[in-house]
Amino acid sequence: MADVTIWNEYRHEREDDDVAAVYPDGIHATIADALDAGGADRDDGPDHEIRTATLDDPEHGLPPDVLEETDVLLWWGHEAHDEVSEAVVDRVQQRVLEGMGLIVLHSGHYSKVFKRLMGTTCSLQYREDGRTERLWVVDPGHPIADGLDESIELPRTEMYGEPFDVPEPDRLVFTSWFEGGEVFRSGCCYRRGSGRIFYFRPGHEEYPIYEDDDVRRVLRNAVDWATPREGAPRTFGERD
Amino acid sequence: MADVTIWNEYRHEREDDDVAAVYPDGIHATIADALDAGGADRDDGPDHEIRTATLDDPEHGLPPDVLEETDVLLWWGHEAHDEVSEAVVDRVQQRVLEGMGLIVLHSGHYSKVFKRLMGTTCSLQYREDGRTERLWVVDPGHPIADGLDESIELPRTEMYGEPFDVPEPDRLVFTSWFEGGEVFRSGCCYRRGSGRIFYFRPGHEEYPIYEDDDVRRVLRNAVDWATPREGAPRTFGERD
Amino acid sequence: MADVTIWNEYRHEREDDDVAAVYPDGIHATIADALDAGGADRDDGPDHEIRTATLDDPEHGLPPDVLEETDVLLWWGHEAHDEVSEAVVDRVQQRVLEGMGLIVLHSGHYSKVFKRLMGTTCSLQYREDGRTERLWVVDPGHPIADGLDESIELPRTEMYGEPFDVPEPDRLVFTSWFEGGEVFRSGCCYRRGSGRIFYFRPGHEEYPIYEDDDVRRVLRNAVDWATPREGAPRTFGERD
Amino acid sequence: MADVTIWNEYRHEREDDDVAAVYPDGIHATIADALDAGGADRDDGPDHEIRTATLDDPEHGLPPDVLEETDVLLWWGHEAHDEVSEAVVDRVQQRVLEGMGLIVLHSGHYSKVFKRLMGTTCSLQYREDGRTERLWVVDPGHPIADGLDESIELPRTEMYGEPFDVPEPDRLVFTSWFEGGEVFRSGCCYRRGSGRIFYFRPGHEEYPIYEDDDVRRVLRNAVDWATPREGAPRTFGERD
Repeated sequence: MADVTIWNEYRHEREDDDVAAVYPDGIHATIADALDAGGADRDDGPDHEIRTATLDDPEHGLPPDVLEETDVLLWWGHEAHDEVSEAVVDRVQQRVLEGMGLIVLHSGHYSKVFKRLMGTTCSLQYREDGRTERLWVVDPGHPIADGLDESIELPRTEMYGEPFDVPEPDRLVFTSWFEGGEVFRSGCCYRRGSGRIFYFRPGHEEYPIYEDDDVRRVLRNAVDWATPREGAPRTFGERD
Repeated sequence: MADVTIWNEYRHEREDDDVAAVYPDGIHATIADALDAGGADRDDGPDHEIRTATLDDPEHGLPPDVLEETDVLLWWGHEAHDEVSEAVVDRVQQRVLEGMGLIVLHSGHYSKVFKRLMGTTCSLQYREDGRTERLWVVDPGHPIADGLDESIELPRTEMYGEPFDVPEPDRLVFTSWFEGGEVFRSGCCYRRGSGRIFYFRPGHEEYPIYEDDDVRRVLRNAVDWATPREGAPRTFGERD
Repeated sequence: MADVTIWNEYRHEREDDDVAAVYPDGIHATIADALDAGGADRDDGPDHEIRTATLDDPEHGLPPDVLEETDVLLWWGHEAHDEVSEAVVDRVQQRVLEGMGLIVLHSGHYSKVFKRLMGTTCSLQYREDGRTERLWVVDPGHPIADGLDESIELPRTEMYGEPFDVPEPDRLVFTSWFEGGEVFRSGCCYRRGSGRIFYFRPGHEEYPIYEDDDVRRVLRNAVDWATPREGAPRTFGERD
Repeated sequence: MADVTIWNEYRHEREDDDVAAVYPDGIHATIADALDAGGADRDDGPDHEIRTATLDDPEHGLPPDVLEETDVLLWWGHEAHDEVSEAVVDRVQQRVLEGMGLIVLHSGHYSKVFKRLMGTTCSLQYREDGRTERLWVVDPGHPIADGLDESIELPRTEMYGEPFDVPEPDRLVFTSWFEGGEVFRSGCCYRRGSGRIFYFRPGHEEYPIYEDDDVRRVLRNAVDWATPREGAPRTFGERD
């Protein structure tokens, strides 16, 4: 069991009726449901303690004690990346390096948190076209792919295309095929310090992506994978 | 300038009229032409000394002195992988570890040489469908992508699909999109010992893939990239 | 809980009194004890079902059904690598690619099994000097380092020095310092197919290395880490 | 030939007589000499156009036009990392992602520029002990090791020890052995965007490390390696 915090910008859902129709309680609520917030027994992994946090909460809902108690943080943001304070970015980065898992979703590729940890622009190509995406499992041995078939098909998505300006992933789990002719590395694993980071592409606010059973399964698998493992001490500084 | 040896199984072209129509002098001759065997000045890199070798030559055209003088070896094979002798595979492996570059083409994924160096089955999915492939440059900073646009489009190809059972590439340069709905990691860089290895997917014998200008450019870039660099001594064994 | 098979060449212990004095029941028995073969409750992880196999058993103790039931295979060999049959090497490789974990110990770097999976010579430098080795944890966040301090100190070991002719590890957990002046990448993680591979340097037959508490902890951690995870299907071949 | 800019904090040399005795014209001048600033023909590679820049120059000597013309930037800093402006760090990062090579030296591990590109703390252990360091070539096939023997020995250095909180290097070229008992990954290669980054450990201000012939050779090799290669366009944003 992990202590999971789902962070959502939570602006589109309150500003745009079309988005509100898809995610009436916010994307964070739908993700919480996917992770089985209710505490019912999961048949495919441990239950989690779930909390949510949003941009407009004090300290964006991520004061030090919340992050201290968080094993895995999920991050969804889009239109207000610049409003996230540097203090919170510093804090998230530090916790990841100490071991907290981080799952960055969709347009979160441009979040300060992800760019800080990657060291690159995290830019990509995109098109709002609402056509099919098929995510191929390129690493079937990876636990994030547990329980999936050879691919996941999403009938209507926004397109993200290469190049994706990130460091070469430690391990690439998914690559997306788009009906319009593009490809994208859509499931990328990294480690930074003691923390595990997973970038997962699906999740545009205008489509009910987080209602998809396979996507929900990936989110659960990713939380399990990103949960901190015990290691050895991280000791720095002057030695005798 | 590099000493380049192009190895071709050279059976399809002699057995099958359709293939002979595409590659009348053998795939190796077309690749040699792509690398500018005639010695004319290249405007995009150094000239090379080119030789070719085929399965039915004595020692498959790869006796020790030929490999000793080879800086970069290209490998195309398909229907007769099993006829390649273990002695020649041993020799090629040893030369790669010493620094010789190796470029494995298309169905060469199943060659003994490639499987030996990868340690995996190198299996994949495929379909003979003759539809469009688009190779996206996912690593625009890589010298193998020099001079290309954001993608290469091949109107008629055989499809190769994921999963591709190879070790995670050191660097992934191309990912293919197929009209039929699949993706494939179609340009994969590895180093083994002091040698550089590049797997490049395009090249089915029934389509004139090696006549394509962009594909030819990739072959030239790959030869330049795989040419051995000087390093430090590889010294093994007992120390004083 | 994992089904663990410990493979030992088991020749030195029967041929050499000095080695027999250190490992009277064979290195495999000592490793089995380290993994808590007796079934007593471990305080630092799950119990395992342990079996052992040796070179002189029929099929080296690794017939298909044994490998089929093995989650993690440990491998110790030294003087008789060449006596291991190709059929058994094929079988072990196949099982690793399917997901079986493999832990290669000390002089097992030169085993056919490890060389097959690495694709390189796996050569290194060495000296029989019986001086101190200190294994530094370079990746404190890795679960194989769980419960260790910042380093492991072994007062008397054989020295292994760089260069070590293996592919760049996916993740380097330990680097050894030797009193005589050398360094070595002594804990290397790889994935091949769906299987996890860990090379761990310590373990010369003339020193009671596998009695060391920290070394035993690493072995237990490595078994936990190498235990197969569920993933997605590995489907290859022709598609419709 | 590359356009090389050597950036030096240049404070210790002006504030501390002991350092001034070692580097009377500044560390940058000694490095420039190592790279053959005078323009004489090098026998081991191309000449370079060298310029130097220091912290107390306007814009730290790195206005946009200087960076625009720089192929490879070397960076040495220690006591005044915090005085480097964010604007210059932004600019250096952007240029690296566009393709500029970056060589970070010794205590530059804690520079804003390196931490920005790595996404980690870049922390380590250290001890001012003035004893021997031996840098082992762990990747003899790497061009940065060209012309070296199996190791470089420096009789008096500051010690840096693991853990080193950086992302797993793309390629590890050197690992240091320290007389006092530690090890360190002392030559680490990364790519970020289109730029190549090399971290090289030697270079404490109180020892004449940059006068050492092998160290100078590594600096020259590293500049050659980090010089930008041509690739494909980096095109981001909305697609039709």
